Amino acid sequence: MGRFREPPDPVFHALNASIAFDRRLGLYDVRQSKAHVAMLAEAGILTADESAALRSGLDRVASELEEERFEFLPGDEDIHMAIERRLTEIAGPVGGKVHTARSRNDQVATDIALFVRDQATEARIRLLDLMGALVDLADQHADWPMPGYTHLQRAQPVYLAHHLLAYFWMFRRDLERFANAACATADLPLGAGALAGVNWDTRRASVARDLGFDGVSENSLDAVSNRDFVLDYLSAAAICAMHLSRLGAEIVLWSSEEFGFLVLGDSYTSGSSLMPQKKNPDAAELLRAKAPRVAADMSTLLGVMHALPLAYNKDMQEDKEPLFDAVDTLNLCLEAAAGMLRTATFDREALARAASDELLAATDIADLLVRRGVPFRESHAIVGGVVRHAVDEGKQLSELTREELAGFSEHLDDEYYAVLSNGSWLESKVSEGGTASARVREQLDRARAILGGVTP
Amino acid sequence: MGRFREPPDPVFHALNASIAFDRRLGLYDVRQSKAHVAMLAEAGILTADESAALRSGLDRVASELEEERFEFLPGDEDIHMAIERRLTEIAGPVGGKVHTARSRNDQVATDIALFVRDQATEARIRLLDLMGALVDLADQHADWPMPGYTHLQRAQPVYLAHHLLAYFWMFRRDLERFANAACATADLPLGAGALAGVNWDTRRASVARDLGFDGVSENSLDAVSNRDFVLDYLSAAAICAMHLSRLGAEIVLWSSEEFGFLVLGDSYTSGSSLMPQKKNPDAAELLRAKAPRVAADMSTLLGVMHALPLAYNKDMQEDKEPLFDAVDTLNLCLEAAAGMLRTATFDREALARAASDELLAATDIADLLVRRGVPFRESHAIVGGVVRHAVDEGKQLSELTREELAGFSEHLDDEYYAVLSNGSWLESKVSEGGTASARVREQLDRARAILGGVTP
Amino acid sequence: MGRFREPPDPVFHALNASIAFDRRLGLYDVRQSKAHVAMLAEAGILTADESAALRSGLDRVASELEEERFEFLPGDEDIHMAIERRLTEIAGPVGGKVHTARSRNDQVATDIALFVRDQATEARIRLLDLMGALVDLADQHADWPMPGYTHLQRAQPVYLAHHLLAYFWMFRRDLERFANAACATADLPLGAGALAGVNWDTRRASVARDLGFDGVSENSLDAVSNRDFVLDYLSAAAICAMHLSRLGAEIVLWSSEEFGFLVLGDSYTSGSSLMPQKKNPDAAELLRAKAPRVAADMSTLLGVMHALPLAYNKDMQEDKEPLFDAVDTLNLCLEAAAGMLRTATFDREALARAASDELLAATDIADLLVRRGVPFRESHAIVGGVVRHAVDEGKQLSELTREELAGFSEHLDDEYYAVLSNGSWLESKVSEGGTASARVREQLDRARAILGGVTP
Amino acid sequence: MGRFREPPDPVFHALNASIAFDRRLGLYDVRQSKAHVAMLAEAGILTADESAALRSGLDRVASELEEERFEFLPGDEDIHMAIERRLTEIAGPVGGKVHTARSRNDQVATDIALFVRDQATEARIRLLDLMGALVDLADQHADWPMPGYTHLQRAQPVYLAHHLLAYFWMFRRDLERFANAACATADLPLGAGALAGVNWDTRRASVARDLGFDGVSENSLDAVSNRDFVLDYLSAAAICAMHLSRLGAEIVLWSSEEFGFLVLGDSYTSGSSLMPQKKNPDAAELLRAKAPRVAADMSTLLGVMHALPLAYNKDMQEDKEPLFDAVDTLNLCLEAAAGMLRTATFDREALARAASDELLAATDIADLLVRRGVPFRESHAIVGGVVRHAVDEGKQLSELTREELAGFSEHLDDEYYAVLSNGSWLESKVSEGGTASARVREQLDRARAILGGVTP
Repeated sequence: MGRFREPPDPVFHALNASIAFDRRLGLYDVRQSKAHVAMLAEAGILTADESAALRSGLDRVASELEEERFEFLPGDEDIHMAIERRLTEIAGPVGGKVHTARSRNDQVATDIALFVRDQATEARIRLLDLMGALVDLADQHADWPMPGYTHLQRAQPVYLAHHLLAYFWMFRRDLERFANAACATADLPLGAGALAGVNWDTRRASVARDLGFDGVSENSLDAVSNRDFVLDYLSAAAICAMHLSRLGAEIVLWSSEEFGFLVLGDSYTSGSSLMPQKKNPDAAELLRAKAPRVAADMSTLLGVMHALPLAYNKDMQEDKEPLFDAVDTLNLCLEAAAGMLRTATFDREALARAASDELLAATDIADLLVRRGVPFRESHAIVGGVVRHAVDEGKQLSELTREELAGFSEHLDDEYYAVLSNGSWLESKVSEGGTASARVREQLDRARAILGGVTP
Repeated sequence: MGRFREPPDPVFHALNASIAFDRRLGLYDVRQSKAHVAMLAEAGILTADESAALRSGLDRVASELEEERFEFLPGDEDIHMAIERRLTEIAGPVGGKVHTARSRNDQVATDIALFVRDQATEARIRLLDLMGALVDLADQHADWPMPGYTHLQRAQPVYLAHHLLAYFWMFRRDLERFANAACATADLPLGAGALAGVNWDTRRASVARDLGFDGVSENSLDAVSNRDFVLDYLSAAAICAMHLSRLGAEIVLWSSEEFGFLVLGDSYTSGSSLMPQKKNPDAAELLRAKAPRVAADMSTLLGVMHALPLAYNKDMQEDKEPLFDAVDTLNLCLEAAAGMLRTATFDREALARAASDELLAATDIADLLVRRGVPFRESHAIVGGVVRHAVDEGKQLSELTREELAGFSEHLDDEYYAVLSNGSWLESKVSEGGTASARVREQLDRARAILGGVTP
Repeated sequence: MGRFREPPDPVFHALNASIAFDRRLGLYDVRQSKAHVAMLAEAGILTADESAALRSGLDRVASELEEERFEFLPGDEDIHMAIERRLTEIAGPVGGKVHTARSRNDQVATDIALFVRDQATEARIRLLDLMGALVDLADQHADWPMPGYTHLQRAQPVYLAHHLLAYFWMFRRDLERFANAACATADLPLGAGALAGVNWDTRRASVARDLGFDGVSENSLDAVSNRDFVLDYLSAAAICAMHLSRLGAEIVLWSSEEFGFLVLGDSYTSGSSLMPQKKNPDAAELLRAKAPRVAADMSTLLGVMHALPLAYNKDMQEDKEPLFDAVDTLNLCLEAAAGMLRTATFDREALARAASDELLAATDIADLLVRRGVPFRESHAIVGGVVRHAVDEGKQLSELTREELAGFSEHLDDEYYAVLSNGSWLESKVSEGGTASARVREQLDRARAILGGVTP
Repeated sequence: MGRFREPPDPVFHALNASIAFDRRLGLYDVRQSKAHVAMLAEAGILTADESAALRSGLDRVASELEEERFEFLPGDEDIHMAIERRLTEIAGPVGGKVHTARSRNDQVATDIALFVRDQATEARIRLLDLMGALVDLADQHADWPMPGYTHLQRAQPVYLAHHLLAYFWMFRRDLERFANAACATADLPLGAGALAGVNWDTRRASVARDLGFDGVSENSLDAVSNRDFVLDYLSAAAICAMHLSRLGAEIVLWSSEEFGFLVLGDSYTSGSSLMPQKKNPDAAELLRAKAPRVAADMSTLLGVMHALPLAYNKDMQEDKEPLFDAVDTLNLCLEAAAGMLRTATFDREALARAASDELLAATDIADLLVRRGVPFRESHAIVGGVVRHAVDEGKQLSELTREELAGFSEHLDDEYYAVLSNGSWLESKVSEGGTASARVREQLDRARAILGGVTP
């Protein structure tokens, strides 16, 4: 460049060049350059001929990128300069006009905004597929009882469908978050120039329309300093990855011999290099394991932006690698989660056996006392005593005699035994959002309606 | 409790009890208990008398909490049990009926949702005040030139108003984010019970209405396992705190002797214990320094939720301290930022002197060549050469002779000197969102309109 | 202060004052002031009388702090100024001489170094106690077989002692890390002044000796800018907390009805507000849940120090809260972990039942083939086929007939059945560090020797 | 594999396979396999012929890897299986014997330990080079005054050498930290098998010796579950990267037109795509910007290990990418920092001008009063008043008249003016570690002695 006398030191080049990763933005860069050039012609800054030559040259660059024929040269510092360099090779000196009235600062912000918008949609598409897989599974296991847990202790029984649908609602919130991330890219940065606007009477609204933005950024300094939309994507991704980690953790647990609630298909498990009997739930483990990395991608960018004075600083080049890492990780995890779930075979008997643990009915017995007028706190204490007695005696709750029960409360009569007859515990959870069959059916209907009504 | 034979070990109690921090949720807990009791009466689960007794007792608890007369006892494990304990002291055994048809799991989720919703609004109120301070300052400095920076190198001049308004748009996005966080609390968790719904035909919609929720959570397992709304708040807070760190960092920079762009008031600076001359921008430094802590609050909760199986786990008790820390930190920082800015006195002359650096006009000269038909990339190289020559010769750009210029390009004629006459550099940035006066005026109008139109 | 005309704004004071948390350093501050004063007298900067008056005043301040009689005033900004204020009240104007030849910058660095050194030792004391609890438990369960897991799938049996001792070695590494953190505080910051050294010919070595430092910091700018020793403590704490989270997670798992490997004592578990039967492993859950917070404390300080120019910046005041939070969290968790383990009762039968799963012997059968000359990779494939056949047929490995086995390999003869007779699988793991009894016994001996040989 | 009927789904393979990144460990894997095979022969588990065939085959694999001729196949899941596959192609069925008495679990732990040990040394080599660059620069600028800053306000003057050496001591602590990280890899994991030890009487000490480990891990479960040494490296790297971020931030600041303290060489700066005059300190900005990413690498692994039950879990595969990212980032940054510093040209005059600000002598005047017997706190207030008066009057401190001074203190006599004669302020900082020339010279000597005495 004009004012420099020495070429970059190779170590500096290695540190400084972003071409190794930002090449991924190539097609976005071409797309925006085409829109930019069209606007420059519309505003009379370029002639129609110049515009045509540039646009045709850019189309050729796009083909080369798409077909992976684009040749990167050692001196290419970033994708923007590489494309301008190639464009000039193709179109001649007019290529040097493509950068009129813009800077890499607004250019790169625009590329990333386009990328984030697309990836927010991609995440939504994959979320919808995963949600569909959950709804299908829930439908197939609508009346399979299993224990619900708190503190990983059996607490109250639920239907497997109810448990699976809990994830549906988590992912539905993620859907919303990615929609918000897409909205955060609504304002076109291009036209902000290096930081202060450009020396030309441009038509930014026209570029915005062309590239699918709702409007233009209101302040040029902010436009080139802003990476909020990347953070919005990363935050959505980090929370979604956390949801996937919970799903993964439960599949790992349920695949253990001790739980034995499900078996994953061979195509989503793997063996041990040493132990021939092993069939490991690697996919579920990796769903669990990938979440901290996505959370760290968000931490990275928050850390990079921390305390940065306006406007553009080179530090902001460090936005891309965490973003790309989060995108690739999340997309793969979402697809793998759906694929993995579709290979799962649940063990009805194992689930039912675990769900028939009589201690799971303790709340129902307490509520029986409440119906007889005993304040809940008191009835809770009474049943706690009954449980301790049963545990001490090594008896099931239903094995306690009328005499034994009488020592705890006069209200523990025949209905006590009726409550303990399995099944009623689930169907008694009739409150909205509860696990009673009718409620689960409602949920399934709503879930299906949501899937039917959303466009990514 | 009934099934336990031994009391908690003091070390376990110290680890387990949340009363030291969750007491802060006391009034929310009372409010929800009142709504819950009203519903239980409506549904015929409590009598009108019981309901009246409980609600009147709860009012008394509320007064005690508000007036800081509520006495916590050593055995109180958490705010929920402390309030039920006190309610029972006040109202007698009927107090034990308040916990009918609910669990601490849905109860605490509801308290936090109410708290987050209020704090999202609080953040919006404080953001609006800060945005007002920025608009006022911008108005007062609408035509004060200063250098705009990229890479902390002087790049192109801007008006101080333009620079200040860049922050306005950042905070406006924060406003949106906190609105989204408030929306994320729309579904009432109460009524989900421990995890499976409750054994009663409740009226959750009525409680929702009473407490200002839009609807009820669709899945009881999800309702008690979900802390997404806390994460949404924390994410908004972390990004907002990052914005504040940038503002703080710039104020620190501008307060340095080297920049000398502004002086903060005595009431927002402090001295040194040792050096009598010091007047330090502590407030600005702390705005900068607090951001990592808020980001870490988000990391903490993502880490806590990582890989947790459904439904409630004790781990989730660790949601409160990071949330409270973020709330307190952010609220204080927002208020301090507005207060600090209101004491700032800018130095018009120092800003103008820095803005009159002729190198800031280099892009304008390049654009002059572009208007003469030279492709931008070529004109960029020509002007780069001119700059290097001037620097080498120790001359200002305007001190170069026609002869010297001729060696670079035939197009560097009289207009070259005209471009270098200060001021035109700012007014030439006429693109939408640029720093030309008319554009800044548009921005100010839009900013005022936004402030006028938003309700927290 | 002299150069200020206006008092601090209350909002600024709320942001700026550290007295709410740094009061915790009070006694350290007094201790260093006493050493500082003694040195000033030794160097002839104070007279013997002045020194005596100051030291006696400081003793009184120390008593007031220890007995919680020290009265903080609203204007106290930090503990250093509060103590100097109080000292002057006690000793008269000579109190104003205590700050000769030092600054708050070197003073606070010294306080924190003293605090970190003590807390590193405290962590070591608690680690040793926890390691003792593990060794005792291991001793008591030296020959109790249980399944070892990889991927949470049963893999190969181990002795419970072997599993418990795995934690011993983790904590032993933590012990080392805290020793390193203590070493990182070896250089006395005091005497660095504000940043440049002081205008006096001091005797820093003498203060260092007095306060237990090995030497003095070599560079005054670094001395007041350095918080590495806090980061060293936080890193050690974060890794240790991660270890505790693994222990906690396993206890939660083992306490589940599905695993049923152990029962915690009543004094380290708690009940449910709703479900009378519940006995939840809250302590173990909280050991798990606290780790992300300690990791976030480290992230916070790394974020605070990020990109800070030299020397002292107010940002560094944000070192204390994450440090204190990590210290309190870790100390409590270490104590609770030891306490919790001491209440654990393991279920020998449940462990043995799980360990007797014949599939755990698959590697042993593969190794049988290896001994017959079959390359390991081939024998692995053969046994994999046998396992699949057994699973398909619903048979135990030992129930397969000689005829069935012959289809897989001629080498699967009588010894095949011998290998499957339980017990030999454990004792065959004779490699150093393996689970064979003799090896576990070696480990126990070494562990005891370590405990006997370490001083905190 | 034997027990699987279906091949991995391509999505699962994409998630599960680590070959894309763990191929980097190839040569370590070959090295350990050679040592393992030698030991198996020594222990009589393999014959001499088998051992020879395997070792010769491994040598060929090593050559292929070194010369980048090793062909990876689509089905290769990880580097360990790829190498065993290739070894078997080369050596025939005996290749299947290389995995006798080991598992991928202990194998991968060993590879990473070897890698971490080497990279800890590599970091030390680069640190020493950077420290050398700092010492050279310090030597060349030993007596160049500049302002020292606190709160980014000029505080007291220091010599540039003193400021540069502050970084020397930071990096020296990093040196220590990487040495500790190397020590953390002292125990050989290999021989732990999958988790329980192996069914063979192995000679682990011999393998340890061969591979440069001090000893063998004491507990097989811990050996395969442990990634502490990676965390130790990452912690050291995160702290070191933070130090680099401070250096980078200062270079950015000093390169600004406002500070103007230094100019970086053309080979370590770059231009703007738009603004021809720009010469940006990109290298320094990137040193600053890379730190959060390294910190996030540590957070990632802490998050991955969080709450993992023993022993190996697939999650642990997520150790490699953060480690590799941290290694590559840190190595490049250390090299670039040294390179960048070597191109820096300081501006003696600009530094001196800034250092001659008379306010920097305020502490010295206060100390003058102290020497006259005024308690420091009182003298601080007096000088604060003098400063305020001078600022209000727009005078330099030395321009105040004897009459004006008399209003503040009788002690402000001729010596007041003497103190204000520049230069004495630096030489008066005679305390150990202070900025007086003799002290800086001592520091330089010690620094050189350290550089001379350390072996990486």
